[in-house]
Amino acid sequence: MHKSRLGGFIIDCQTDDLDAAARFWGAALGAETESAADAKEALYRTLRTAPGEPHVQVQQVRHESRVHLDIEADDVAAEVGRLEQLGARRIAAVADWVVMQAPTGQRFCVVRVQRADFAAKANTWRP
Amino acid sequence: MHKSRLGGFIIDCQTDDLDAAARFWGAALGAETESAADAKEALYRTLRTAPGEPHVQVQQVRHESRVHLDIEADDVAAEVGRLEQLGARRIAAVADWVVMQAPTGQRFCVVRVQRADFAAKANTWRP
Repeated sequence: MHKSRLGGFIIDCQTDDLDAAARFWGAALGAETESAADAKEALYRTLRTAPGEPHVQVQQVRHESRVHLDIEADDVAAEVGRLEQLGARRIAAVADWVVMQAPTGQRFCVVRVQRADFAAKANTWRP
Repeated sequence: MHKSRLGGFIIDCQTDDLDAAARFWGAALGAETESAADAKEALYRTLRTAPGEPHVQVQQVRHESRVHLDIEADDVAAEVGRLEQLGARRIAAVADWVVMQAPTGQRFCVVRVQRADFAAKANTWRP
């Protein structure tokens, strides 16, 4: 048994200037941006959303600019297996998350739990 | 003076089978899907999110599959002007919304107000 849910959306920006990208998206969406607290997060800026809402982050990437969604799970491997059964394809493991591709073509990520209300609100899946 | 905020995310699917696409995304995200109530909405399926959260919809499209975000506004023309000042580019007007492109390359839409708590929670912009 494991749990998962929609974690949030990542605005992938092919740019050399992540701060400028975060400034645009923060101003466009009327959201304050939070800088990364540590080096691991240096390629991300978080746009502050309401408590409990899916996160929105601006990410510096090398591939073309796009938007992708994250599914957060308390068991990433089990969630990847569940999504494969639904028709998604595993593309790559990166650090502690897994990049997948939907049968409809979009790339998305399965990540570890991001938000405090996960246990209470996520969906429960039984094998 | 007008208001705007992040409206939601649209999962654009290049597919001939919108219901299959909606079934995948509904199962992946653990969300019930709502069918369109009228013909105008025939190219969309809504994934039920918590009250007040940004909407998530699966849309049948002809262009390549992607994810895009919507900004909802009580004055679409004023919001388009504001976003142009921030560096976004107007691509096309479609029905009652406007397709734009961010300086970081992503396409997004400026749409009319979608959710009931808009007036209380959206950002206010003064010319």
